Amino acid sequence: MRFVFCGFLALYCCICASLSNASPRNLILIIGDGFDDQHVTMGRNYLSGMQGSLVVDSLPYRASVQIETVSDEGRPLYVADSANTATSLATGGVTNIGRIATDIGDKDLPTIGERAIAAGFRVGLVTTSSLTDATPAAFLTHVSARSCEGPEEVLGSTYYGMPQPACLDDARDNGGPGSIIEQLVGSGAQVLLGGGSDYIRQLTIDGESVESLARRNGFTIVDRSTRLDSFVSDKPILGTFDGGTLAVRWRGAGGRVAEPTETTWLHVFSDYLGEAIETEPMVCEPNPEYNDTPSLSSMSDVALRHLARDNETGFFLMIESASIDKQSHKRDPCGSIGEIQQLEETLSLALTFAKDHPNTAIIVTADHAQAAQILPEPSGNSEYPVPVYSPGLTARVHTPEGGTMRINYATNNSFSEEHTGANVPLFANDVAAPLLEPFMRQREVHDAMSHFLFRNVDP
Amino acid sequence: MRFVFCGFLALYCCICASLSNASPRNLILIIGDGFDDQHVTMGRNYLSGMQGSLVVDSLPYRASVQIETVSDEGRPLYVADSANTATSLATGGVTNIGRIATDIGDKDLPTIGERAIAAGFRVGLVTTSSLTDATPAAFLTHVSARSCEGPEEVLGSTYYGMPQPACLDDARDNGGPGSIIEQLVGSGAQVLLGGGSDYIRQLTIDGESVESLARRNGFTIVDRSTRLDSFVSDKPILGTFDGGTLAVRWRGAGGRVAEPTETTWLHVFSDYLGEAIETEPMVCEPNPEYNDTPSLSSMSDVALRHLARDNETGFFLMIESASIDKQSHKRDPCGSIGEIQQLEETLSLALTFAKDHPNTAIIVTADHAQAAQILPEPSGNSEYPVPVYSPGLTARVHTPEGGTMRINYATNNSFSEEHTGANVPLFANDVAAPLLEPFMRQREVHDAMSHFLFRNVDP
Repeated sequence: MRFVFCGFLALYCCICASLSNASPRNLILIIGDGFDDQHVTMGRNYLSGMQGSLVVDSLPYRASVQIETVSDEGRPLYVADSANTATSLATGGVTNIGRIATDIGDKDLPTIGERAIAAGFRVGLVTTSSLTDATPAAFLTHVSARSCEGPEEVLGSTYYGMPQPACLDDARDNGGPGSIIEQLVGSGAQVLLGGGSDYIRQLTIDGESVESLARRNGFTIVDRSTRLDSFVSDKPILGTFDGGTLAVRWRGAGGRVAEPTETTWLHVFSDYLGEAIETEPMVCEPNPEYNDTPSLSSMSDVALRHLARDNETGFFLMIESASIDKQSHKRDPCGSIGEIQQLEETLSLALTFAKDHPNTAIIVTADHAQAAQILPEPSGNSEYPVPVYSPGLTARVHTPEGGTMRINYATNNSFSEEHTGANVPLFANDVAAPLLEPFMRQREVHDAMSHFLFRNVDP
Repeated sequence: MRFVFCGFLALYCCICASLSNASPRNLILIIGDGFDDQHVTMGRNYLSGMQGSLVVDSLPYRASVQIETVSDEGRPLYVADSANTATSLATGGVTNIGRIATDIGDKDLPTIGERAIAAGFRVGLVTTSSLTDATPAAFLTHVSARSCEGPEEVLGSTYYGMPQPACLDDARDNGGPGSIIEQLVGSGAQVLLGGGSDYIRQLTIDGESVESLARRNGFTIVDRSTRLDSFVSDKPILGTFDGGTLAVRWRGAGGRVAEPTETTWLHVFSDYLGEAIETEPMVCEPNPEYNDTPSLSSMSDVALRHLARDNETGFFLMIESASIDKQSHKRDPCGSIGEIQQLEETLSLALTFAKDHPNTAIIVTADHAQAAQILPEPSGNSEYPVPVYSPGLTARVHTPEGGTMRINYATNNSFSEEHTGANVPLFANDVAAPLLEPFMRQREVHDAMSHFLFRNVDP
């Protein structure tokens, strides 16, 4: 009896404290692309040490999120991409790989970003990828294929020489709403910051650039010449700071990524002969291409200031550290770790913001799992007198605390590693926690976010 | 102010409801060896479907646990084995790979099992491995190397032809406490159920078998001839049901495990020529060697009945589903999934027990991460006109819901896959939850368990 009474009381107290209907109501969703538990641990070991902890570890709620993907026939698929997972988070729907806020019948699925704008919230997207990449795109646009980034690609494109899907029904040429970038600049978003200047330079069917269209729609255009730390505007902001994905902060020394283990000539005759010659350990170093690329936290700072200023309703802000994933595709653990650091800095910024804005829910999660695995250094089998090594590609990274972290990539022998299928972590602050369960499906994360923003609101 | 007041009230209510000092006080720790998030998801996808959920998913608290391992010089190591992780859970200490409840200076670390016995709790160990395997061993014994399982091995042994460490200081020949099995039967445990009859048949320095020593110490000996479902005894129980590890429940069809992808002859000349020929998909089937092997839940049922009967103090029960890990070492995903099913059944049993015994804390966790990864089926790169495949070994498993789950193993080209370094999940019931944090180190899980058992108790 005591338990039942106390339980109800506790539940009421939590909800009354955290889910106040007072405005403004702010929701910050931080997506670490590919930020699964192997990557979280890689980041922790390098950035804070094996016995240390990350900023995400300080959040008071942690859950696990099952990813759902289906084929066009509705058959279960066990590994997702960033398009269909962002669609689940943004719409609550389950769809096929490559789709942006459309179901397997190509029907548009309303997004939380659109609904928030309709309900009077301000909406922002901040990313280290191109703004037209799958994750940001799914929060405000609808196309049948993620490749339809600009007015050119919506009619068809190639990637590594291979034809990519067009979105002919979506093209403005055919009466559709246009490519991802055209839909973004017509969405009513207040903040769009990331990469993707290649796409705003493209011409629309009307012969004007997307940038010109954005200006006509009221956007202030910012770029690397803009001082972000002091930037304010009373108009919506569109900022692109690179042609596509922003340069990453770190890289392996001299640009090294994971490498094959060398074997001696005797190994040609038998797996049990010869010797395995390990790749040399490496340190992480600043990426010289990073230069004056704005950090994720500096872009997020602009967004938070812009979205919160004189705002009595609240906002929805999606922030993505995109290249945790992209650097794992390229087998560069230092690249991924630097982007985990960017996510951490941005989360710190968001937590500071939330201190002054108490009705701010913060959720951090990954969209899908990725290829990296931390392996023993040295191999536990290395005492055996045979050449022992990972058949994939391996990087041995010196950590600041004096260890060596060995990371392998072995999902694919091709030019790019592939995602994996594990459920992903979710971290939340006190305001978001009462909305969540310890185990959720990705579409249910959307439902919880919707409940936070739209309860007692007519979107 | 409302938040502060409510927060304190909620905290008090949770603690007053769950951490009652009323006896008996029962702690059930279920370890899924290698049960990391890839394996949890493999199990969920197969056993419940992509949109389903496991029994572990129903638990009201979920956390993430960082593994800590150090070299003998105290340098951080980023991948652990079952010996040093069980040592952390059992003692709160951080030690080197292979050590059983001893620190890197070979000093014995007091275990939660020993302290529980000293404080008047009953203690049980149930496992699908040999009782002398690292995980159970670390809860009641102390040796410098996990290989010192019996009176013979404590003086030195071989594994796959390679010499294994002896534990000469621990040997009774040298005045030590003896091998793992000798220490176990002298520990004061009430229940020891698992594999390991090879070790109880060995002779001690006194020329008697370990089984005889156990009988002298008061144990009732049980084996496959015992009907477990009705078994009761007023004496401690020692049951071994196989020479070493118990047979697993499932296997790949016809005994198939993960296999290399075949390539055609042109591939010899270039990575970009020829064709990759996928391994044939397989179903999981009953393992014919399983036969009348007792299930983990049937052994756990005996343990719970024995530990709870006429017990006003309470008990500590460690239950291990050991072969989730061992089958991943062997690259048999069906083997692992069957042992996840065993863990699930056992958790259901524990939850039912806890309904009738309200002061029962249940914690489920993994000891370390393991090699399996769920990969896309088909590969997202398969549209490119080059042979695309995982460089490791791959199994494609038909799931009951009509999907195909592709699992690769690529940590090692040798006879056995290796562990990986990701943090692992932890699941807990309402009674255990107030003791836990969303992010913990493995040694802190020990501290929380100790607090539950020993607060207000003089162990």
